[in-house]
Amino acid sequence: MAETLADLGEWELIRRLGDFAPPGQFADDAALVNKAGFGRLVLNTDLLVEGVHFSEATTKPTDVGWRAAVANLSDLAAMGCTRGEGITVGLVAPGATPWAWVEGVYGGLKEALETFGGVLLGGDCSRGGQRILAVTAIGQLSTPPDADCGAWGAIRRGDGRPGDALLCTGPHGLSRLGLALLQGELQLANGLNGALSVRAITAHQRPRARFDAVRALIGSRPPALRWRVGGCDSSDGLAAAVQAIAGRSGCAARLDREVLPLDPAMAALPQAEAWCLGGGEDFELVLALEPDWARALLEALPGASMIGELAAGPAGSLGWRDGRPWPESDGLIAGFRHFS
Amino acid sequence: MAETLADLGEWELIRRLGDFAPPGQFADDAALVNKAGFGRLVLNTDLLVEGVHFSEATTKPTDVGWRAAVANLSDLAAMGCTRGEGITVGLVAPGATPWAWVEGVYGGLKEALETFGGVLLGGDCSRGGQRILAVTAIGQLSTPPDADCGAWGAIRRGDGRPGDALLCTGPHGLSRLGLALLQGELQLANGLNGALSVRAITAHQRPRARFDAVRALIGSRPPALRWRVGGCDSSDGLAAAVQAIAGRSGCAARLDREVLPLDPAMAALPQAEAWCLGGGEDFELVLALEPDWARALLEALPGASMIGELAAGPAGSLGWRDGRPWPESDGLIAGFRHFS
Repeated sequence: MAETLADLGEWELIRRLGDFAPPGQFADDAALVNKAGFGRLVLNTDLLVEGVHFSEATTKPTDVGWRAAVANLSDLAAMGCTRGEGITVGLVAPGATPWAWVEGVYGGLKEALETFGGVLLGGDCSRGGQRILAVTAIGQLSTPPDADCGAWGAIRRGDGRPGDALLCTGPHGLSRLGLALLQGELQLANGLNGALSVRAITAHQRPRARFDAVRALIGSRPPALRWRVGGCDSSDGLAAAVQAIAGRSGCAARLDREVLPLDPAMAALPQAEAWCLGGGEDFELVLALEPDWARALLEALPGASMIGELAAGPAGSLGWRDGRPWPESDGLIAGFRHFS
Repeated sequence: MAETLADLGEWELIRRLGDFAPPGQFADDAALVNKAGFGRLVLNTDLLVEGVHFSEATTKPTDVGWRAAVANLSDLAAMGCTRGEGITVGLVAPGATPWAWVEGVYGGLKEALETFGGVLLGGDCSRGGQRILAVTAIGQLSTPPDADCGAWGAIRRGDGRPGDALLCTGPHGLSRLGLALLQGELQLANGLNGALSVRAITAHQRPRARFDAVRALIGSRPPALRWRVGGCDSSDGLAAAVQAIAGRSGCAARLDREVLPLDPAMAALPQAEAWCLGGGEDFELVLALEPDWARALLEALPGASMIGELAAGPAGSLGWRDGRPWPESDGLIAGFRHFS
């Protein structure tokens, strides 16, 4: 039997596709074109496929558009951009698709662009068997304040070091809870209060691109420290983000089980820890910083929290700070294996 | 009944989607980001959908990749770029897709990038019901030789003027002939010589991005003339390209029926004129230039030919220079209405 994409899974496929690109080009959330004449351009392409990433049942067309834009813009933020510049959109849809659906999607895209920066620059459309959005976002790293090295302003997965504090810019698990509520997997009862439900559904339908957090990061850098920030966004889940940073940085990561970044009202749910670590689609930033810088950012950014640290150890290994064993089942960091 | 995309057709859909973008943003083959800090960035997204733009029957995976890259790079050339910088690729495919097919496609992409300039910068992949490539290419306009205006180096559909010569950079209809041969619509016989068949199939499977023509265009500008070039590529067909330029430029176009840009060996085919004007996917450039510049370019670029002129008249109207009526049936300029 010929080897299929389902045999490989998404991550092995991406690893192999990286062999067609320059070395290291696929290492981060988005592509950095750090070349004379291009400024310091950041470019990101994300696919949203009906039945895989969204369904009409749980997602209004305006929310599909909003999420498509934010998923892309979040990757720009995760690279260190403080705003988006624009997007192109490839739209595939069956001929029977109502114009009203497309109009809603593009309305949501535009609303997100107006909120987080950027315009619709162009795109393409084609008939196809299912509804798909292929969104490419461009942005730019902010200008260095001095003639410092090319790394200024970039957030790279591999730029963490042992001893770095791990920080995330907001609570995790809310988006997964929102999805559970929308799909009827969980009912509004049994201690789930209404305000939490609203927050969770909003987190799922209307995630934010955390450009504000990048501005706070830039603004809170202690003058004594040069630019060095490890990080990525948590779209694939918090544990997956931590693992990606630790792995690329050649470190182990230790998380603090007592202070998981949970919405306090959510902490009582039995799924709280699993969804916090593995729910995904929270679109927060996870950062590895010198502890001084992390403390300064914590002051500057309400909602941010310390979650652990990088340490010398096997690259990409995860553990609890108190030494308790990490769950054997790896479901928390499987991420999304879209081909299986 | 709700209005569907099939009701609208591709061009009306694109017109409506343009309302979500800044005014004029959708006017050209690709998007120009002419903004401080971004250089003069050109960005283009194209979709290739299996069953619409390619089929396994007629297109090997390496050719799918090559064509996907070239279709995008051609749009950069059509904006005035002299090379590509890079592409991102969104890959959608069913889980049962063989890895060997994907490997072939990316091999073809890379081969085209190595030939015309650029690298694989990034992308995304997802499971989906059919094979789709969403390719976004970036490039840059060449640097002005002086402090001339921002239009320097850009080729815009709307920059033609009455009196301009219309020129195309190569023969048309070969790609359509190649498709006919591959699909068995036409047989290798009846005066179709073998060398023509090879040229036609190569034109279909391995089109070129005409960056060389843009370099010749830049190099052949008479010193007395400022930069002003109307144009686009002929991916949707020669007549469609001429109509797009004439329409955006507020002119009529008159084509010279006696000197259609045909491969000489193809001229005897009964389909020659129709495929030359409406076959599509030749990926040549069609340019509207001051006659002096057009003559200089003709000297500099073997294979280029004069095809007619822009004239005062109804915007986008097409006619023959000798006054004979244009074919009533509009099949030549329908282009690709992918939703109907």
